[in-house]
Amino acid sequence: MKLSSKNLGDRVDTLYDAIVVGGGMGGLSAAIYLARYGLKCLIIEKGRGRSVWMQDLRNYVGLDPDTRGSAIVNHGTKQAVDWGADHLRGFVEEVTDEGDTFAVKVKVGRKNSTYPVFRSKYLIAASGVMDKLPQLDDMQNVYDYAGYTLHVCMICDGFDMWDQKAVLIAGTEGQINAAFVVNWFTPYITVLTHGLVEVSNEMKQKLADHGYPLYEQKIAKFHGENHKMSGVELEDGTMIEATTGLVNMGSTYYNDYLKGIEGLEWDGENLVTQGLAQTTHDRIFAIGDLKKGLNQVSIAVADGTMAATQIWRNIRRASEPRKWEANVKQKAIVN
Amino acid sequence: MKLSSKNLGDRVDTLYDAIVVGGGMGGLSAAIYLARYGLKCLIIEKGRGRSVWMQDLRNYVGLDPDTRGSAIVNHGTKQAVDWGADHLRGFVEEVTDEGDTFAVKVKVGRKNSTYPVFRSKYLIAASGVMDKLPQLDDMQNVYDYAGYTLHVCMICDGFDMWDQKAVLIAGTEGQINAAFVVNWFTPYITVLTHGLVEVSNEMKQKLADHGYPLYEQKIAKFHGENHKMSGVELEDGTMIEATTGLVNMGSTYYNDYLKGIEGLEWDGENLVTQGLAQTTHDRIFAIGDLKKGLNQVSIAVADGTMAATQIWRNIRRASEPRKWEANVKQKAIVN
Repeated sequence: MKLSSKNLGDRVDTLYDAIVVGGGMGGLSAAIYLARYGLKCLIIEKGRGRSVWMQDLRNYVGLDPDTRGSAIVNHGTKQAVDWGADHLRGFVEEVTDEGDTFAVKVKVGRKNSTYPVFRSKYLIAASGVMDKLPQLDDMQNVYDYAGYTLHVCMICDGFDMWDQKAVLIAGTEGQINAAFVVNWFTPYITVLTHGLVEVSNEMKQKLADHGYPLYEQKIAKFHGENHKMSGVELEDGTMIEATTGLVNMGSTYYNDYLKGIEGLEWDGENLVTQGLAQTTHDRIFAIGDLKKGLNQVSIAVADGTMAATQIWRNIRRASEPRKWEANVKQKAIVN
Repeated sequence: MKLSSKNLGDRVDTLYDAIVVGGGMGGLSAAIYLARYGLKCLIIEKGRGRSVWMQDLRNYVGLDPDTRGSAIVNHGTKQAVDWGADHLRGFVEEVTDEGDTFAVKVKVGRKNSTYPVFRSKYLIAASGVMDKLPQLDDMQNVYDYAGYTLHVCMICDGFDMWDQKAVLIAGTEGQINAAFVVNWFTPYITVLTHGLVEVSNEMKQKLADHGYPLYEQKIAKFHGENHKMSGVELEDGTMIEATTGLVNMGSTYYNDYLKGIEGLEWDGENLVTQGLAQTTHDRIFAIGDLKKGLNQVSIAVADGTMAATQIWRNIRRASEPRKWEANVKQKAIVN
């Protein structure tokens, strides 16, 4: 059921089989499977995740390519709750490994917040990442284009940049290297560093050799209308013509709540997993963008399937087998 | 575009980047990604695959739980073709590894068949499996229930068997062991071997200890109406009450066309894969039910994403980088 500050008291004494931190595509897939294995699970969703920013999901089998991320999240949330999962809007502040259980402390409500603690046998870390965007004084100007014609995922949206004039916005020298990948889709690339990068002479030469202009000034404003970019204005007044762009400035990882837990192997900010999305901690699974691998909806959804299935296997194998008692007794009498 | 015997002559001289054998969920996902990477791909679909048998897809994020497999396949096929993939209804008879390319011989048309040969750099094996069903004289009687209340996938549909009287139909002694897993969902299990198994005394004892009756006679008929089972009649007239069932008789693998290719590592009939769904052959990828792992739609879809992405990476890295020539020349003049 949907939990809120009004009814969450009903569940604080529940020992969940699994708590799923993050109600995006991966977390919802995990919850749907867990519920259909008959396991008790709670999704904790902070809201405003990466999937909600997606204006369209082009490459997920079975859904129209103009389906919005928020529509799928809403649909999947209803699916999960219909099958029996609990769902709470809140922010996971802290997770304590108590040995056989986890204690998950959640901040609920922005004002007059409460801090209930839920307990579970397993934890699924599905809290994902958020793409970093260039910081302008007027962030609404960035939001007007980000997720529409100003993309954050080349694999997802490179096709939609085909042979267009494009800006690549990078926050480190390493991130500039995306120019030499995105040029598969278009060679008309202008690199912007928004004043954040000390670009080496070697990189400058490489960009020049490819014919990709580099501008190191700060971005002042994105131009265009109806979410369609027409260009980028820099602080010195330079206008860059561009009908699309790729922001490649890295990601913010929602993984603070895992940092104090022993036994997890990290690769940078990503969790290392093996087998069915299991981390190096027996009772913690990591799915979607938090784990190493491609950040794609289809992969997060499969990860959720795998994590839930392994948790079911573990719990099932640790349970007493259900016998058909009437027949067992009958046999005992006959014997 | 959709190919048929009428227009396939247009494509026999095409060197595809990838040919996808099998147009189920995994193959369609691969094709959608390949097309959106701007790669030329051809899906070859024999029809009547496992997904088309699915009467509902309960656990795929974003789609209603009563969505039919055939609806998703049709939708995904249109998606893939709209993005630029070619799609041909036909049966892959033979694949020859020519070193840098594959020659894929296809039987097109049931009557007056033609046998065109298509060529590609990469091959994605997505031809899957088909669940074996008990063979009755009247197969329509089996089809009336299989995929509805007589399930073939416990992970997919165990939930829908919850605490119901169920038959487990097994074709080997090993397959009878599913009783001790499906009992997570219901303990009211009757095991039927349809005359196919020499059941050991040890197994008989184990079933008796759990209270699960065992019938070794042949099945005569499934009873019920509107795809809802009410029971199973055996050849000696015994009636087993059951409102649901699980057929666990193994699968037929559509992998004959791969058997002559050197360098593939097999695990039984499954292909061993690593990384992004790559087999032990550099240019062959295996996705979905053909590869080792869980046979789930979500996983096949993710596999397709991975295979297509790795193929794109390989092809991109082997290609000349696209330069913004106007700027490169301009620079040369300035110098």
